[in-house]
Amino acid sequence: MAAIASTAKTFRVAVVGVGLVGGEFIKQLLAFPAPSPFRLVSLSSSKSTLFQPDGLSVSATSWKDELAGSGRKPDLQALLRELSALVKPGQEVVLVDNTSSNDVAALYPQFLKFGVNVITPNKKAFSSELALYEQILAASLESGARFLNEATVGAGLPIISTLKDLVATGDKITKIEGVFSGTMSYIFNEFSTGKEGGPSFSSVVSVAREKGYTEPHPADDLNGADVARKLTIVSRFIPSLRSALPNGYQSVSTKSLVPAELEGINSGDEFIKRLPEFDAHFDRMRADAAAEGKVLRFAGVVDVQAGIIKADLEKYSVTHPFSTALGGSDNIIMFHTERYGARPLVVQGAGAGAAVTAMGVLSDLLKLV
Amino acid sequence: MAAIASTAKTFRVAVVGVGLVGGEFIKQLLAFPAPSPFRLVSLSSSKSTLFQPDGLSVSATSWKDELAGSGRKPDLQALLRELSALVKPGQEVVLVDNTSSNDVAALYPQFLKFGVNVITPNKKAFSSELALYEQILAASLESGARFLNEATVGAGLPIISTLKDLVATGDKITKIEGVFSGTMSYIFNEFSTGKEGGPSFSSVVSVAREKGYTEPHPADDLNGADVARKLTIVSRFIPSLRSALPNGYQSVSTKSLVPAELEGINSGDEFIKRLPEFDAHFDRMRADAAAEGKVLRFAGVVDVQAGIIKADLEKYSVTHPFSTALGGSDNIIMFHTERYGARPLVVQGAGAGAAVTAMGVLSDLLKLV
Ligand SMILES: NC(=O)c1ccc[n+]([C@@H]2O[C@H](COP(=O)([O-])OP(=O)(O)OC[C@H]3O[C@@H](n4cnc5c(N)ncnc54)[C@H](OP(=O)(O)O)[C@@H]3O)[C@@H](O)[C@H]2O)c1
Ligand SMILES: NC(=O)c1ccc[n+]([C@@H]2O[C@H](COP(=O)([O-])OP(=O)(O)OC[C@H]3O[C@@H](n4cnc5c(N)ncnc54)[C@H](OP(=O)(O)O)[C@@H]3O)[C@@H](O)[C@H]2O)c1
Repeated sequence: MAAIASTAKTFRVAVVGVGLVGGEFIKQLLAFPAPSPFRLVSLSSSKSTLFQPDGLSVSATSWKDELAGSGRKPDLQALLRELSALVKPGQEVVLVDNTSSNDVAALYPQFLKFGVNVITPNKKAFSSELALYEQILAASLESGARFLNEATVGAGLPIISTLKDLVATGDKITKIEGVFSGTMSYIFNEFSTGKEGGPSFSSVVSVAREKGYTEPHPADDLNGADVARKLTIVSRFIPSLRSALPNGYQSVSTKSLVPAELEGINSGDEFIKRLPEFDAHFDRMRADAAAEGKVLRFAGVVDVQAGIIKADLEKYSVTHPFSTALGGSDNIIMFHTERYGARPLVVQGAGAGAAVTAMGVLSDLLKLV
Repeated sequence: MAAIASTAKTFRVAVVGVGLVGGEFIKQLLAFPAPSPFRLVSLSSSKSTLFQPDGLSVSATSWKDELAGSGRKPDLQALLRELSALVKPGQEVVLVDNTSSNDVAALYPQFLKFGVNVITPNKKAFSSELALYEQILAASLESGARFLNEATVGAGLPIISTLKDLVATGDKITKIEGVFSGTMSYIFNEFSTGKEGGPSFSSVVSVAREKGYTEPHPADDLNGADVARKLTIVSRFIPSLRSALPNGYQSVSTKSLVPAELEGINSGDEFIKRLPEFDAHFDRMRADAAAEGKVLRFAGVVDVQAGIIKADLEKYSVTHPFSTALGGSDNIIMFHTERYGARPLVVQGAGAGAAVTAMGVLSDLLKLV
């Protein structure tokens, strides 16, 4: 029977990027219960690479040393040739890109064209120019190889799969609204609770950075680009918005919270030192919101009917779920659709962290099986 | 390439049960954009049936009349033979059971054994005796045919797929807690808001019935069995609880809200007429909860560590999402896991309704493609 044949398939998996998410992914993949359909055939960091067409003999404890000691430099073109050569009936090949590299992302169309499936939490390819995205779609259509990117939005939360299901079953999305950045979520959950006073904006950002919730340079979170990238990824799954953002995240109307005076600062430490100069500005916004019974949240909005895609600091009533239900560095995404008309379909939970992100990647891999 | 071959597969779909959900499902299936991999080969109500191995020539407007006028009585054994004969490489066959019938459910192991996939919103098979559930698993394993039942819990909400992903990627579920019944959700969202007074319990139930939110006989909702069935389905996907409920939903510790004195009443109208006799009892519970700053919610709890599976009327703080985030007849399900440790993964939205339920069924069908 067809279904038996498909479960007997093997999946050759090549992992590029073995940092926080990559390391966790390798751990989860190697822990997959026997009989596992997966063979780990390649590992690459930015410094070295390993490749064995029939599967590396590495364990959860040994792979790091083996990779570090391989003596072979990573070479994406060589990997492309090696993986393409493994594609044959009954044997799927998967590139798992756990980097945030533009170079790797730019090669997805090549991998896909040669029949190599691509799975990734890396937002770059899907949130950049429309041309690259269309090359990815075309290459996938041509070979039948799939690209899956659940973990690019909401990490392990079922955001993209839910959106795809809604669209594929014929529902009409009217609006998607959410808090898409775990960092922004944490910062504003702490900063703005609906009361008038509270900790200063700079102190909240500083604590977030110490806890490792922000990028080393907090401006990389505060500029809103991460949210704009996620909105781009989401929008492209909505038929009427597929081509709405020719320059990807740069076409999204995005409010940066980086004060103009601090734009050029290259050092995260220096940025944090100067941020208090702007506390009064954020205090005022918080007080204005509180006076209206509202909180501040950095939200992403895709209003399909109005054709608006924006990342902005918005005010929400203290009784709104963005105020009452959020905590920690939760993401929350609300899908307003024709079928979910009166009340939205909502998905909420941690939207960052290596374990949940790796889980999102692995769940994509399981979709191929 | 393998992936191309699989997208070129055709799916012969037989629909048993053409009521609210079945009718919507047929509409969504027939609206699937070309080139559709699906062929609708059979339709059955409790009165008549249609079968055409290469696909019925029916449209969204004609199928009802065609079925009513077929002159052929439904015969599950005949359908089993007919569908089994269609299973061959490159041609999948799917039984979509949109009834709530135990008779259809009892035959799933047969369909599966012969390679026919089974997709259904019907809770019966998965929430009854463990023996039937194990026959379903065994038959599916034997032939490779799949059974998918996303719409049995939360209708179109991604509850079962999320649970399966968590488990399959190696996360450990510690607790699942939710409001699993749209009817119970509506009743208690209206009845208990954290304030002391409010409408009487019987008046809320009566309005819910008039709006079509309850079964014709409200006791069929108030007895908690629907929640117990959903908890059974969910628990069986958790490895350590797979065999915990030998008698299915009857093994779940379930609080019935049907007053003992009204147990034997067969008529829904009579039940509604007598319910006000018990308003004082529900008033007292509401007042007790309010005095503690709490609301009443009929919740389902699967506490994996404690080994407790129960459906009960619980008190939750007015600041808990079951109080602040719920509205209408929303379901809300919280997954507490090892990876989602500090804060749960939450899915919320309408948990009933023909359009969203049919969507859950169709999204299962798309998983086969
Ligand atoms: N962490 C999260 O919570 C989270 C959540 C959602 C999505 N993501 C996404 O997941 C991806 C990985 O995040 P992370 O936190 O794991 O980052 P990370 O810890 O910085 O790891 C990045 C890895 O990529 C490797 N790398 C970079 N360029 C490479 C190249 N050209 N060839 C081979 N390897 C290369 C690095 O190698 P070296 O070690 O040699 O430098 C490193 O191993 C990113 O796209 C991120 O946006 C992360
Ligand atoms: N409605 C919802 O919101 C919802 C949500 C989640 C799950 N579900 C589940 O979805 C299923 C269908 O619900 P529904 O609301 O569509 O119910 P419904 O309107 O009562 O429809 C049931 C259908 O099943 C047919 N049927 C019953 N026994 C049959 C048999 N032995 N052979 C062939 N057909 C048979 C009935 O035929 P006749 O028309 O000839 O009587 C009718 O067409 C149920 O299992 C329900 O629990 C429903």
